[in-house]
Amino acid sequence: MIRHETLNPPQHIYPVNPWKIIETSFYPRFLAQTETIFAIGNGYLGLRGTFDEGQPEAHNGTFINGFHETWPIVYGEDAYGFARTGQTMLNVTDAKVIRLYVDDEPFYLPTASLQLYQRTLDMEAGTLDREILWETPSGKRVLIESRRIVSLEHRHLAAVSYQVTLLNCDAPVEISSELRGNQPNPGGVDDPRKARGFSRKVLHAREHYARDHRLVLSHQAERSRMTIACGVDHLFETECSWTSNADIGPDEARVVFSVDARKGKPFHLIKFITYHSSRHAPTAELCDRAERTLNRACRNGFDALIQGQRNYLRDFWDRSDIEIEEVPDGSRTCGEMQQALRWNLFQILQAAARAEGVGIPAKGLTGQTYEGHYFWDTEIYLMPFLTYTAPSIARNLLRFRHSMLEQARKRAREVNQKGALFPWRTINGEEASAYYAAGTAQYHINADIAFSLRKYVDITEDKSLLFDEGAEILVETARLWLDLGFYSGRQGGAFCIHGVTGPDEYATVVNNNAFTNLMARENLRYAAETVLEMKERYPEHFATLVHRTGLDLSEVSQWRHAAESMYIPYDEALGIHPQDDHFLDRKVWDIKGTPRERFPLLLFHHPLVIYRHQVIKQADVVLAMFLLGNAFSLEQKKRNFEYYDPLTTGDSSLSACIQSIIAAEVGDEVNALRYARYALLMDLADIGGNVKDGCHIASMGGTWMTMVYGFAGMRDYAGEISFSPRLPSNIARIRFALMIRGQRLRVETTRQNATYTLTRGKGMEIVHEGKRHKLEPKIPLALAVEGGHGGAEEGTKVEG
Amino acid sequence: MIRHETLNPPQHIYPVNPWKIIETSFYPRFLAQTETIFAIGNGYLGLRGTFDEGQPEAHNGTFINGFHETWPIVYGEDAYGFARTGQTMLNVTDAKVIRLYVDDEPFYLPTASLQLYQRTLDMEAGTLDREILWETPSGKRVLIESRRIVSLEHRHLAAVSYQVTLLNCDAPVEISSELRGNQPNPGGVDDPRKARGFSRKVLHAREHYARDHRLVLSHQAERSRMTIACGVDHLFETECSWTSNADIGPDEARVVFSVDARKGKPFHLIKFITYHSSRHAPTAELCDRAERTLNRACRNGFDALIQGQRNYLRDFWDRSDIEIEEVPDGSRTCGEMQQALRWNLFQILQAAARAEGVGIPAKGLTGQTYEGHYFWDTEIYLMPFLTYTAPSIARNLLRFRHSMLEQARKRAREVNQKGALFPWRTINGEEASAYYAAGTAQYHINADIAFSLRKYVDITEDKSLLFDEGAEILVETARLWLDLGFYSGRQGGAFCIHGVTGPDEYATVVNNNAFTNLMARENLRYAAETVLEMKERYPEHFATLVHRTGLDLSEVSQWRHAAESMYIPYDEALGIHPQDDHFLDRKVWDIKGTPRERFPLLLFHHPLVIYRHQVIKQADVVLAMFLLGNAFSLEQKKRNFEYYDPLTTGDSSLSACIQSIIAAEVGDEVNALRYARYALLMDLADIGGNVKDGCHIASMGGTWMTMVYGFAGMRDYAGEISFSPRLPSNIARIRFALMIRGQRLRVETTRQNATYTLTRGKGMEIVHEGKRHKLEPKIPLALAVEGGHGGAEEGTKVEG
Repeated sequence: MIRHETLNPPQHIYPVNPWKIIETSFYPRFLAQTETIFAIGNGYLGLRGTFDEGQPEAHNGTFINGFHETWPIVYGEDAYGFARTGQTMLNVTDAKVIRLYVDDEPFYLPTASLQLYQRTLDMEAGTLDREILWETPSGKRVLIESRRIVSLEHRHLAAVSYQVTLLNCDAPVEISSELRGNQPNPGGVDDPRKARGFSRKVLHAREHYARDHRLVLSHQAERSRMTIACGVDHLFETECSWTSNADIGPDEARVVFSVDARKGKPFHLIKFITYHSSRHAPTAELCDRAERTLNRACRNGFDALIQGQRNYLRDFWDRSDIEIEEVPDGSRTCGEMQQALRWNLFQILQAAARAEGVGIPAKGLTGQTYEGHYFWDTEIYLMPFLTYTAPSIARNLLRFRHSMLEQARKRAREVNQKGALFPWRTINGEEASAYYAAGTAQYHINADIAFSLRKYVDITEDKSLLFDEGAEILVETARLWLDLGFYSGRQGGAFCIHGVTGPDEYATVVNNNAFTNLMARENLRYAAETVLEMKERYPEHFATLVHRTGLDLSEVSQWRHAAESMYIPYDEALGIHPQDDHFLDRKVWDIKGTPRERFPLLLFHHPLVIYRHQVIKQADVVLAMFLLGNAFSLEQKKRNFEYYDPLTTGDSSLSACIQSIIAAEVGDEVNALRYARYALLMDLADIGGNVKDGCHIASMGGTWMTMVYGFAGMRDYAGEISFSPRLPSNIARIRFALMIRGQRLRVETTRQNATYTLTRGKGMEIVHEGKRHKLEPKIPLALAVEGGHGGAEEGTKVEG
Repeated sequence: MIRHETLNPPQHIYPVNPWKIIETSFYPRFLAQTETIFAIGNGYLGLRGTFDEGQPEAHNGTFINGFHETWPIVYGEDAYGFARTGQTMLNVTDAKVIRLYVDDEPFYLPTASLQLYQRTLDMEAGTLDREILWETPSGKRVLIESRRIVSLEHRHLAAVSYQVTLLNCDAPVEISSELRGNQPNPGGVDDPRKARGFSRKVLHAREHYARDHRLVLSHQAERSRMTIACGVDHLFETECSWTSNADIGPDEARVVFSVDARKGKPFHLIKFITYHSSRHAPTAELCDRAERTLNRACRNGFDALIQGQRNYLRDFWDRSDIEIEEVPDGSRTCGEMQQALRWNLFQILQAAARAEGVGIPAKGLTGQTYEGHYFWDTEIYLMPFLTYTAPSIARNLLRFRHSMLEQARKRAREVNQKGALFPWRTINGEEASAYYAAGTAQYHINADIAFSLRKYVDITEDKSLLFDEGAEILVETARLWLDLGFYSGRQGGAFCIHGVTGPDEYATVVNNNAFTNLMARENLRYAAETVLEMKERYPEHFATLVHRTGLDLSEVSQWRHAAESMYIPYDEALGIHPQDDHFLDRKVWDIKGTPRERFPLLLFHHPLVIYRHQVIKQADVVLAMFLLGNAFSLEQKKRNFEYYDPLTTGDSSLSACIQSIIAAEVGDEVNALRYARYALLMDLADIGGNVKDGCHIASMGGTWMTMVYGFAGMRDYAGEISFSPRLPSNIARIRFALMIRGQRLRVETTRQNATYTLTRGKGMEIVHEGKRHKLEPKIPLALAVEGGHGGAEEGTKVEG
């Protein structure tokens, strides 16, 4: 259910605009929130949206994906097999600071007299722009125009353009362009979801040098020994006379430009910024690499960077955009869904675009919360979007998982199991979850990876990934399941899996979590199918696989037997799938009677209290009904949804999008829309109250799914693409494109009609409202939507 | 079951002796173990059995019960309601060191040429004696006789007598009597059961001064602010000429006696030692108090101390001894049970005698493992012995629990419950368990306290304790149960208790743990019964209770309803009581197939792995069958025991004694004896391999129970005393005494006959083999034991 505070449509402070997020005033009380909202990044590098001047700031942050410090996890009471190595993505050298002094008066936003203030995240340009007209205490009017960019094209490169114009006078002006190493890495004091902090310096200076307008600092993390080099260079253009002076130390560096500024004569500083880390290159080369990046950037110039960014984004939106036509109702919010959705997709881009050889942190690169760790979010919430719009990124992410397989094998042995167990949360491949009940016990991560691998392979037909990396993952994860579960005499010989935690972290260490068992079954089946296909048709790949895994074919029949014997909890009396063996025995939590300030429950109740109640943090059975919808009848889906929805607090941001999709499927239009809005506006309207800590990237991936799987009613079981559009009444039309097996399908649907057009490719079959159709290239196929707004009566089963 | 390594009778290195533990050689490799075996204490002060000279030592330790440092518990991942304050009993100033130099040659055991070595713990005298004949490298023969005592009579007082005689020569001799503050407090690195350590100094020097032969140091713990003063004074007697010199600093002090020793002229140092801590007195007075204790000790002299100790012990053994007559079989071990049992009882005395205003740590005062914390051990394993042999100590312990009631109320609120929840482990009353699954979740601690209260009141008829303190505990614990459980529609409206951990820590956070539900029922019933009795018959006490607790009588009927509706899991098919709702669903652990070096399981398996199996750390249902035996039929007991025994690893020392008692009851004589020996010799033969960390005090209490409840077959449901003796074939006779409602009952039983004698008191009813008998004062009643060795056929139900 959606709790009290969210029954009214969420609101935010940004004017409706299809392509921009605009802040029209300086809001000191939203400082921390806007640092997230205006964060920019490219999946390799992320900069929180602090102001150019560095002050004021709430939680400044500069993050390199995967650049982390390690620390020994300390337990109040330790036990065998607990995770040992904490990993925390570090806040690294801040290179974006540019401070301005006019008549030696510093420009400082909170006290400045502002005649104009506007900050704009431009999602077509891929820039963060700011325009300010400042009147100094002596009445001098100073126009400050800045633009910040993290290049999507050149992943090591960011830049700031900072232009100042004195409108009504002359004055001496100084611009200090700075580099600040050893940024604070504070931790969350009272919220377990926040990052572990370091009270002391963990980045130690290695090298520092200045040459002309170029500054380079490198630092090494104390325990992880990871090294980072950060360099900046400057171009300065003006008709005014100026001098410059560089000053550098191990942790701080600056170039100061002193200008005799004249009225109406702008001066313009371009600052190129680069980061290179030892995650991707040898330590000894980092400074050289930084220099090369800066050389190229200076040679090509700022305008080329901007143009490249715009091109990149044109392509991105062409592949990824969803156009939403809302039904005008005269309210200020018409167009808000479009804006929010684009911002959500833009954030995924910023988190994923250049995440090469790494994963996607739970907050992308917008904050340190969850310590920059990679979770199942990637596989379940982001991979669908990426698979259909940017398969090469999806491929990289799967290859990254494969690169951690050896550690997952080791982890399985640590927890006394065969096969491989992927870490619930990690940066470097080692399990970093220090609370096994809601961490290590989420064995479903294994099946989530296998699931997203299958989806990727089904939709891309990328057999090379499957054979070269995927199959090895499938073998080892299948082995884990077979070893973890057992055939239970008390369940008529069914294969049971005990002592695991499903997606819902409000019920931990349970027996036969329905989600886990269903997903494990899928994992076992796909592993068996893949291995047998390889043996039959790709003997050389099969030989390699056997060599790598020591596979014995008898294992395959064991996997199949376990899969086909898998116990799936079902309660005949209620006609629902219990979340686990004990779920229905628990007392129902009185959600309505719980004061709103006592949510999220986990911050106000001992885990034991939560665990002994029927109360759900996030969709669990409901998620299984989405991912493995063909394992449920529509009637079961309805009953399950009606049972679980009132028990769901939505204390996790991973829930609303899934609830929306299933609500749409079972014909609950009101909730489908309500949950979709909730997911869409989660961060822009700060529904959870914690956007200051970063974006909920997984939920953002979920918003794409609410449109495509929810409102357009797409399903893709075993790679077969079907649609049953179910637009809610306030949405007139949505349009989007999908890449499917190298072809490109455009979908446009209203509440009455859906049109499918193959804009690239040779021909494709799709299913619409249960009926199969053949699409010819470039010939739109228009079909009526049954029941006008999607018929729950009809179901999704395909006939014919 | 008893595992591989314990199938053979456990062995130890001490010659059989009814009253002494004698070490006949210096065994360097048993250093750490013998420091425990030869530890002495009085429940207030404990000294590990390191040598007089201070070296060599493995884990030296000087402990004051309850004197602790606090520390903020750090969690790998924190959550609401987790315990905050770690508490660790500190190793305080070591005052027992006396170093000896002959011709400037230090006496150092490992390298000394020893012509005689004997160390004796004398359990009748209550002293630790050592006799050594040392030949120095130059051939001088030095007789060293020392005696160490921690006074049972004067709890703040210990003393060392150290006498040296040169047998064949003269020589200059120095004796340095030392005080060493700021002892190390290292922690366990890889074993969660060990204490948290401090890597740095946590005791800060406050005062230090010397006067004549008197030295006083006081220290304060950094965070807890607890203060301790330690003082020593010396008497020195010799015919030889001598001088002395004192030397003192904040953390170290000594008096050095320099003697011109002459052949055959002994010199004799008496060192009195006292400790006073701010747990029992105002900080400002501690040094004064130390001085007063030393003044009195010097005045009375060492011999009086020794005599007082002997008197105290005569009384103790008179009240507490159990004589065991083994059937001679020609083996070296005949008499071993007697010796081990006495040593066990002696250790309880050393842990409990003067534990006034504090509890009894899990290791007594013999080690820092479990951090000096008080657990349920006291109530369930030690209180029976104390109630029947030393009711005033039992009373103190119950009053101590009551003193923590306010914190237990606070803790209940912290974990979102009403009433009071006693801490699973604590020193200062705050929950210190940093692993809730095997800590806080053991809500049964509440019922254990109520249970031991009832047993104490039943056996002593001490209504004043019940009304002044007990009733308040009962009200608040009953409130907790009522709030914790709920009426489950799915269990036909039965009252269910979910999300708790029973005694068996290998199954955590379960629903309807049978032990917990049975004990909670007893708690609720006794609370209701007590409150109603007070209302009817003691209206003034009742009024006070209502004033203190805000009790409403409607609560009482709610408790009764919950108690009478309590859900007790029972499996019809197997005819057993499942340990919890999910226990039987789990896979059975292959204990026989697990290599012996992989025990205890908790040190080699992730908790999740253990939790998903049917495998038991310690008696759980079996413990309930002992404590609440009248809730089970004999047939059920047999079936339960046969089911659970093979699943029980005995990884906890709390298990064997209980398994022995129930084995005896169900007629399994072999296991009754085997488990009894296992418990008896647990520490003396170092069965668990960890006696170096301290004594298993609870198991020691259990050994008394194996004799009285096991072999003599006593039961005391609701205060009614019954016996069904079941001596195993190798025990010819046991004799012991019990204090029951102010009367004194002597019991002597063989396999054929039992004799009951009321040595004090006016008359008493007992039940023997199911038949009621009236005992007249001082007239022995001899009765035949049915079936010769205890008939399982007969059961324990009383007829008539």
